[in-house]
Amino acid sequence: MRITMKDGTKKEIMTVWREADVVKMIDQRPLPFELKFVDLNTTEEIWHSIKDMYTRGAGAIGVTAGFGMAQVALQNADLPPDQLIAKLEEAKKYLDTARPTAVNLMHATKRTLEKGKDAQQRGDDSDGIVKAVVEEADEIFEEDQRAATKMAEYGGKLIQDGWSVLTHCNAGALAFSGLWGTATGPVRWAHQQGKNVFVFCDETRPRCQGARLTAWEMAQEGIDYAIIVDNANSHFIQRGKVDIVFVGSDRIAANGDVCNKIGTLGVALACKHYNVPFYVVAPRMTIDYEMENGMAIEIEERDQEEVTCMWGLDYEKEEKVKMRIAEINANAKNIAFDVTPAELVSGIITEFGILEPSKEGLAKIKDLPPV
Amino acid sequence: MRITMKDGTKKEIMTVWREADVVKMIDQRPLPFELKFVDLNTTEEIWHSIKDMYTRGAGAIGVTAGFGMAQVALQNADLPPDQLIAKLEEAKKYLDTARPTAVNLMHATKRTLEKGKDAQQRGDDSDGIVKAVVEEADEIFEEDQRAATKMAEYGGKLIQDGWSVLTHCNAGALAFSGLWGTATGPVRWAHQQGKNVFVFCDETRPRCQGARLTAWEMAQEGIDYAIIVDNANSHFIQRGKVDIVFVGSDRIAANGDVCNKIGTLGVALACKHYNVPFYVVAPRMTIDYEMENGMAIEIEERDQEEVTCMWGLDYEKEEKVKMRIAEINANAKNIAFDVTPAELVSGIITEFGILEPSKEGLAKIKDLPPV
Repeated sequence: MRITMKDGTKKEIMTVWREADVVKMIDQRPLPFELKFVDLNTTEEIWHSIKDMYTRGAGAIGVTAGFGMAQVALQNADLPPDQLIAKLEEAKKYLDTARPTAVNLMHATKRTLEKGKDAQQRGDDSDGIVKAVVEEADEIFEEDQRAATKMAEYGGKLIQDGWSVLTHCNAGALAFSGLWGTATGPVRWAHQQGKNVFVFCDETRPRCQGARLTAWEMAQEGIDYAIIVDNANSHFIQRGKVDIVFVGSDRIAANGDVCNKIGTLGVALACKHYNVPFYVVAPRMTIDYEMENGMAIEIEERDQEEVTCMWGLDYEKEEKVKMRIAEINANAKNIAFDVTPAELVSGIITEFGILEPSKEGLAKIKDLPPV
Repeated sequence: MRITMKDGTKKEIMTVWREADVVKMIDQRPLPFELKFVDLNTTEEIWHSIKDMYTRGAGAIGVTAGFGMAQVALQNADLPPDQLIAKLEEAKKYLDTARPTAVNLMHATKRTLEKGKDAQQRGDDSDGIVKAVVEEADEIFEEDQRAATKMAEYGGKLIQDGWSVLTHCNAGALAFSGLWGTATGPVRWAHQQGKNVFVFCDETRPRCQGARLTAWEMAQEGIDYAIIVDNANSHFIQRGKVDIVFVGSDRIAANGDVCNKIGTLGVALACKHYNVPFYVVAPRMTIDYEMENGMAIEIEERDQEEVTCMWGLDYEKEEKVKMRIAEINANAKNIAFDVTPAELVSGIITEFGILEPSKEGLAKIKDLPPV
């Protein structure tokens, strides 16, 4: 992503990258108050970085998981091939448990493991297996960026000068490895083309990725925006203040049903009722062709405390503070994602173009070579 | 409302009441962490109690404003009639500015002022004018409670054993003067009839009246509930977990359009799409027969900091803390209410029964004597 330095110049930084067997990333948890980087040296650290949301967002999770597999390969290069493959299988199994809904995670661990197994079957030695796994992890990283660039352009062309865009959660550069992100890619592209564009950032309770991350990304890029509470999105849609909506996705079923951050369904329902285009921006990797119907997707339920407590900066002291907004023993339910039925989606913007959200629409790109 | 004492017994308390010229109320701001009462001795204090939300909710605002007018009358009883009326007119003008959207406020100040003027025209002396104003203020208070009892029963009969109810914001006992509230009245009634009922409390950002007040009320009454982020309501509605929705209202237009806390429209859209009954519970006083269409209602815009900052209890120290969730200079928009078009409303539950949300439906009760 692009950040503004203290002297006003812009600098391009990655959300996650790899240096030999060390995975490096922005720790997104203290954002927007502090820009901090972390090194991940073990599979446990990788697992925690996903589970505890140092990193989040479909693409970034996939890239991180792929790098995690590369790390396992590099750190076990001296084992015989069958033991190396066993280590990789074990790592895949473990990493897949970090976030059950994110399909990119399972895709990335599967792709890297399979490349390792292919190499083993070809009769490669452990060095060959390691090379295959690492190359695939790096390819996932590269694909993520190429795909994002394409999606930004396909989506960006839909935005007219002077339009207001609404987005939910953060499917920005922070949610992917590179500069564009998915849902914010079209906005960045239109802005770079010199179009005036305004962004409504849903704050996205409970973790407020919109208020914390998307708003921060927009401020860094110099794009006009306002944070709104999630409750306000249907009001602005009703009043004609929103021209188009872009959201990301954590998993898309083969029929075009879209699983994304809790609250996405509400935005889609308002768009349907008031006839505002509602686009999902997601690379092909997000599509789970084996999942026929979105209603079958397992939905992660997270800790109640994410609802009843929040963290931020003490207003006076500027120190980090965790605070209760409800009684200590209050009951809460914390559902992390929802499923927007395909019929509420105007189109799915992928690196291959804009697809109709249907079985036929998605099937068209299933077997194309990567962009 | 009914609260649970430390020894487990229940006690009935009022949200707002009057003792001579002193208006007394629960200061709702530190709830659910502290139950605190305040005395209001001047019109400025009354104004601040409404503006700064010591008290909030349609009914409680109306009752408070009526008592505020009674206070002005009582404190100026030694002025000649014309000067007394001038004082009352000045107080009405000032009090009406505290919350522009709440119709009950203007109704209460208008009703009390008019009774004072009627007395003056009849030739009453100042004592007579004071008596007329105070009686009308007390009548608003009594009506509020009689109406709430009726609405609780009309709405409660719609709830079947084992149902789950969803409500938005707090239109509970705290939002009115008495024991029932509006939107939570049916729940309380069904619970008292021995029915099993579960309540989804939308947390209701930005001020979290659902998480802070409705959840606390439910806990006090021993009714099962869970706080959910506002983003999650459409998910639970989609999944068939919500059998019926009750919300309150701050103003209902003559055509049945409903102005209520921001986010209500989103709930209504989800109910419409998934065929879940969506009821508004509000006394006739909430209906603004002079407002033809809800889209013309002036919508209050509040301070950005309600979005970018929150208050609560420090998790460790249990002290009150104000905290930022976004950057200090982040942009936000803070719209306090939205308008749900009549066609999304299943019915409006008033003290006179359940009305069809249309001009004809609302007109039926316009001229009935108070219950």
